[in-house]
Amino acid sequence: MTQSRPSGRAPNQLRAVSIDRHYTKHAEGSVLVRFGDTHVLCTASVEEKVPNFLRGKGEGWVTAEYGMLPRATGTRSAREAASGKQGGRTMEIQRLIARALRAVVDRRALGERTITLDCDVIQADGGTRTAAITGSYVALVDAIRHLRQKGSLDRDPIHGQVAAVSVGIFAGIPILDLDYPEDSACETDMNVVMNDANALIEVQGTAEGHAFRRQELDAMLDLATAGIQSLMQLQREALAR
Amino acid sequence: MTQSRPSGRAPNQLRAVSIDRHYTKHAEGSVLVRFGDTHVLCTASVEEKVPNFLRGKGEGWVTAEYGMLPRATGTRSAREAASGKQGGRTMEIQRLIARALRAVVDRRALGERTITLDCDVIQADGGTRTAAITGSYVALVDAIRHLRQKGSLDRDPIHGQVAAVSVGIFAGIPILDLDYPEDSACETDMNVVMNDANALIEVQGTAEGHAFRRQELDAMLDLATAGIQSLMQLQREALAR
Amino acid sequence: MTQSRPSGRAPNQLRAVSIDRHYTKHAEGSVLVRFGDTHVLCTASVEEKVPNFLRGKGEGWVTAEYGMLPRATGTRSAREAASGKQGGRTMEIQRLIARALRAVVDRRALGERTITLDCDVIQADGGTRTAAITGSYVALVDAIRHLRQKGSLDRDPIHGQVAAVSVGIFAGIPILDLDYPEDSACETDMNVVMNDANALIEVQGTAEGHAFRRQELDAMLDLATAGIQSLMQLQREALAR
Amino acid sequence: MTQSRPSGRAPNQLRAVSIDRHYTKHAEGSVLVRFGDTHVLCTASVEEKVPNFLRGKGEGWVTAEYGMLPRATGTRSAREAASGKQGGRTMEIQRLIARALRAVVDRRALGERTITLDCDVIQADGGTRTAAITGSYVALVDAIRHLRQKGSLDRDPIHGQVAAVSVGIFAGIPILDLDYPEDSACETDMNVVMNDANALIEVQGTAEGHAFRRQELDAMLDLATAGIQSLMQLQREALAR
Amino acid sequence: MTQSRPSGRAPNQLRAVSIDRHYTKHAEGSVLVRFGDTHVLCTASVEEKVPNFLRGKGEGWVTAEYGMLPRATGTRSAREAASGKQGGRTMEIQRLIARALRAVVDRRALGERTITLDCDVIQADGGTRTAAITGSYVALVDAIRHLRQKGSLDRDPIHGQVAAVSVGIFAGIPILDLDYPEDSACETDMNVVMNDANALIEVQGTAEGHAFRRQELDAMLDLATAGIQSLMQLQREALAR
Amino acid sequence: MTQSRPSGRAPNQLRAVSIDRHYTKHAEGSVLVRFGDTHVLCTASVEEKVPNFLRGKGEGWVTAEYGMLPRATGTRSAREAASGKQGGRTMEIQRLIARALRAVVDRRALGERTITLDCDVIQADGGTRTAAITGSYVALVDAIRHLRQKGSLDRDPIHGQVAAVSVGIFAGIPILDLDYPEDSACETDMNVVMNDANALIEVQGTAEGHAFRRQELDAMLDLATAGIQSLMQLQREALAR
Repeated sequence: MTQSRPSGRAPNQLRAVSIDRHYTKHAEGSVLVRFGDTHVLCTASVEEKVPNFLRGKGEGWVTAEYGMLPRATGTRSAREAASGKQGGRTMEIQRLIARALRAVVDRRALGERTITLDCDVIQADGGTRTAAITGSYVALVDAIRHLRQKGSLDRDPIHGQVAAVSVGIFAGIPILDLDYPEDSACETDMNVVMNDANALIEVQGTAEGHAFRRQELDAMLDLATAGIQSLMQLQREALAR
Repeated sequence: MTQSRPSGRAPNQLRAVSIDRHYTKHAEGSVLVRFGDTHVLCTASVEEKVPNFLRGKGEGWVTAEYGMLPRATGTRSAREAASGKQGGRTMEIQRLIARALRAVVDRRALGERTITLDCDVIQADGGTRTAAITGSYVALVDAIRHLRQKGSLDRDPIHGQVAAVSVGIFAGIPILDLDYPEDSACETDMNVVMNDANALIEVQGTAEGHAFRRQELDAMLDLATAGIQSLMQLQREALAR
Repeated sequence: MTQSRPSGRAPNQLRAVSIDRHYTKHAEGSVLVRFGDTHVLCTASVEEKVPNFLRGKGEGWVTAEYGMLPRATGTRSAREAASGKQGGRTMEIQRLIARALRAVVDRRALGERTITLDCDVIQADGGTRTAAITGSYVALVDAIRHLRQKGSLDRDPIHGQVAAVSVGIFAGIPILDLDYPEDSACETDMNVVMNDANALIEVQGTAEGHAFRRQELDAMLDLATAGIQSLMQLQREALAR
Repeated sequence: MTQSRPSGRAPNQLRAVSIDRHYTKHAEGSVLVRFGDTHVLCTASVEEKVPNFLRGKGEGWVTAEYGMLPRATGTRSAREAASGKQGGRTMEIQRLIARALRAVVDRRALGERTITLDCDVIQADGGTRTAAITGSYVALVDAIRHLRQKGSLDRDPIHGQVAAVSVGIFAGIPILDLDYPEDSACETDMNVVMNDANALIEVQGTAEGHAFRRQELDAMLDLATAGIQSLMQLQREALAR
Repeated sequence: MTQSRPSGRAPNQLRAVSIDRHYTKHAEGSVLVRFGDTHVLCTASVEEKVPNFLRGKGEGWVTAEYGMLPRATGTRSAREAASGKQGGRTMEIQRLIARALRAVVDRRALGERTITLDCDVIQADGGTRTAAITGSYVALVDAIRHLRQKGSLDRDPIHGQVAAVSVGIFAGIPILDLDYPEDSACETDMNVVMNDANALIEVQGTAEGHAFRRQELDAMLDLATAGIQSLMQLQREALAR
Repeated sequence: MTQSRPSGRAPNQLRAVSIDRHYTKHAEGSVLVRFGDTHVLCTASVEEKVPNFLRGKGEGWVTAEYGMLPRATGTRSAREAASGKQGGRTMEIQRLIARALRAVVDRRALGERTITLDCDVIQADGGTRTAAITGSYVALVDAIRHLRQKGSLDRDPIHGQVAAVSVGIFAGIPILDLDYPEDSACETDMNVVMNDANALIEVQGTAEGHAFRRQELDAMLDLATAGIQSLMQLQREALAR
């Protein structure tokens, strides 16, 4: 008999996911996304300017910043503002989020403005980056709706839907949407970002200890594809409310 | 007839205040405090170590860090972790919070451990530092209760209650608990921190434009005293739940 | 019989105060102010530019920076330029000095220029921030005189006089202008900034250990008012020389 | 007829690869690896200490740092030492290199010492991170041989071989080992790290513009697998010289 | 007829030099040195510890830090503490001062303690680094005397006297002790540090525009030698007071 | 009988010197210079802009940056990009290199562009700064040739040749071009930069332990003059290839 996963969930079962829009009042898009005990506040801010390298090119920009409140985790981690720099993990994650969102935006239709997705982890329990991408998509749509209501956009710059989930191998079986204890117990971990055409935007599989075979990769991708379809359904429902 | 204050509140009226304990799951104390649209998450983290200057002295330490999410405000402000340093305003506020909390703690009874109050502003509408102090007190009590339940403390290191509120002068009349539009409209602004013996822990009155007279100071302190008594009642109710 | 204060001074007695103008030759205003063994060099520098947020608004700016020479104190403190950042205390003090000076300047009359007050502590013995404000006022007046002699100003932008002093409670009695041993021995400490209309510009009272009552606050403010009147007389005499 | 790739190489053709050992004299392992015009100096340095989090645990550590000489590229890029921080791309790459190498090291057999792989790009033409991993493996083996010759190791801590290559999709066909013009021309880019058991250690596929389908992923992985087998043959030949 | 130098001094004439000891009260050595309008405060601070690389070796250390008050010069320069790093010029000068002083100290006789020379320029008019070295020697002697009076030293660690002066070529003639206008007018500039045996400790000659010949070097060194002898006489007189 | 120098070379003997041009492909000038086991890559990069202080003045700029690969030396040194700042030694050296090269450039003839010399030490064995200057001159000439071939320059901005060498005193005799063991064994060390008119551009002699007399200075300068003539011959040969 196979060992069940630490969370007791079925291998292909997502955690309870919720997506709350308009969570704070100032941002053009503001979403609190929860994947179980992982809670991330994703805000989308519109600024009527672009980075230097895009000035005068008629294109917009989508970027992201990621932060973790010091006590989002089991032991307090140092505040990056106090230590004076963002760590490598933070940089890696915020670059990933930004690429994922840019993959569904027509930057020319956006015009010379920047949308910044701020993803701040209020409480962490594994999978913060995939929750951040999934929530940021909804915040981004709200920010674009805000611009369209103001009449600032000729056409919708969003040409696809994006969501993300983590997968891994635990005791020989692939499992979906790892929480922190599962992430620590299984050595192979993969983050998958897909669009609504079931195409891959990012695949980041990492094996510090246990290298994984092609069939394991395939099984994990199958799980991720199904999980992302469920997440996209939840995004659509949230946006319809 | 006197001009009414921008928020429409009575001069001596607090905003709707709520204090939610156990808001996040990892911290020993975790409180979401709301003064109207100002929402601050205050967590208290216990670490079994002290700063170098206290090592071996048998005393504990209480400190604070303050942060504002980039889109807590009407326009996005740069993330301090990205710009590489905490600004002067952040430093000033976190020093104030820490002093206020230390004023009610017997550091010898605490023993050689540090409690860090992290005050992160989720949404800002004026008065973030006074909300942070008021919420941090509750988070601190929860952290101490946690230590006492574990049997780590011989006696209660908390020897008083502390809360804070802002006051100001608007169109000639003193008003209590300023929101952001009020704070911008009136030139005199004072933050008051008191304990439950009605004694003053901090008084910080600032007049960039309009200098204030002793009788104005007195009127503002009277307002603050009453407001803080109400806040302390709310703290006690929250801690009794 | 009451215990006398550590310095042996009467409770309402200032230290020997001197204000030397034209102390260095390059700055438009340059004042060495001494409150007993606390010596602060205050220079006022005029620059024909304003910070970005004021550009094109027809207003000037007054700002301040504060520094302490590494061996101004009993034990050498690390040079902030070497450690790579200004500490919280430095930031807090320089923000206070700047606000105090701006309170007596009509920034529109100043025109689009910036005056920077650099307050560098040559030797410290308590009360460096209040000495810095008191000396900076004189340096500021000299810089304004310099501009008026050049014909750069239509009218005098200085519409008031400002000075500052510290007060505290020692062994139950309020005392004026604390030196370092007194500052260490008494737990309540307040810095008061006033103008020549006897109105308050800043009140910053702090009690880490001993919270103070309203009547103690009142007694300290009475002492401060008298002390500041004496300091303003010394400022006027220095400016008349 | 299909468009041929910019470099004129066959789709599954590596660039000319060379691996020169003992390139500099001080390091325990020192390898200049060339993938065409991409030249990376990989040195392995042994230090008899471990990071704090491993102290006293009887395990070693393998880490990596990555740098690019300012004029390794077509236009000069700012020196990270001068700008004061390592960028996100640098951090991401050095974390990748370190994980890849740790995947083939038994850290307990290494004992309490650290091996640092410094990968400095002398000249860049695409694929610097995969060249760095491929060269670092050889430098790592040389450093371990050095330790074994000194008698510092009971057994060989290296339990596998690791190499890496990039793959992409250009004009609809998967191509191997992209140079810089190819990397710019094709929107999908994937870095693959494998061991000598043909198992995956890292898969990082990124599509900013063109999302990729599962069969494209499969084709790219097939190409990568064959390419990495060739690179491993070159590593073995270099180590046998 | 030859052109006279800008200052009107004879080519071999020093500026008025004064050396005031015990200028501030806290430091073990505290000297205000004036070379004309160049005023530098040199303090020597003793700390009973050594840098890591000397720990347990029975030797002491002598180091220096250099700073310039923002308005020591004709136009205000940015405070290095605010900009977050010391510039190249500052680093170069403080390294020079430290080497000069170490050249006359027996670090074994000093024992495991550090003397830090802080050289802070109150007012600048050329030659700040040579004034700093000349003044620091006197501050160092005072700090050593302080240690000897406390009985902390078995023997005198100072085995020589050190002073420094600048020389240059102006309109074809070598001149001594350049002030700022002279330094700007002549392209060749040399700083010379010597001991009381007339031997050279540092020679730093720089020609951005006009390269200098050996006979010019010789003439400048002759001038410097005589100038340093005068400075050493002034040091001895100051130390005898 | 005199002791022979550690390297076994004759006192006036340079190490084997080689100058390889076009070492990397992107830079306008790219030279690998070797002084024995000291290997420095010197690239010259042309940018069509000048620093702020030169904007609109019709002059160009020549600057330099210096770096050392972490394992260029016997023990690994921390990467300056990771530690977040360039050390004093790095700053001092890059300022020296820049001044040396500017001494032979007519910045008006260069026009409003900047040439940056990046000197990166691949392997260090003493004398890196003098090798860097000697190699940078050749890289600079190649960059200027590149500009002239493009027709960007009316006339040659290079009006002289520059090279550099170190000299020292070992066991009483002056020696040329010190390698690392010699540099450590002899206490006096001097770096000399000269032009092809045998005039001095920089002389930097340092004696931490052993102060040097004028006749020793003269003997070292004689050695340096001859050594630099040989280096200039090698520069000319390299440029003629």
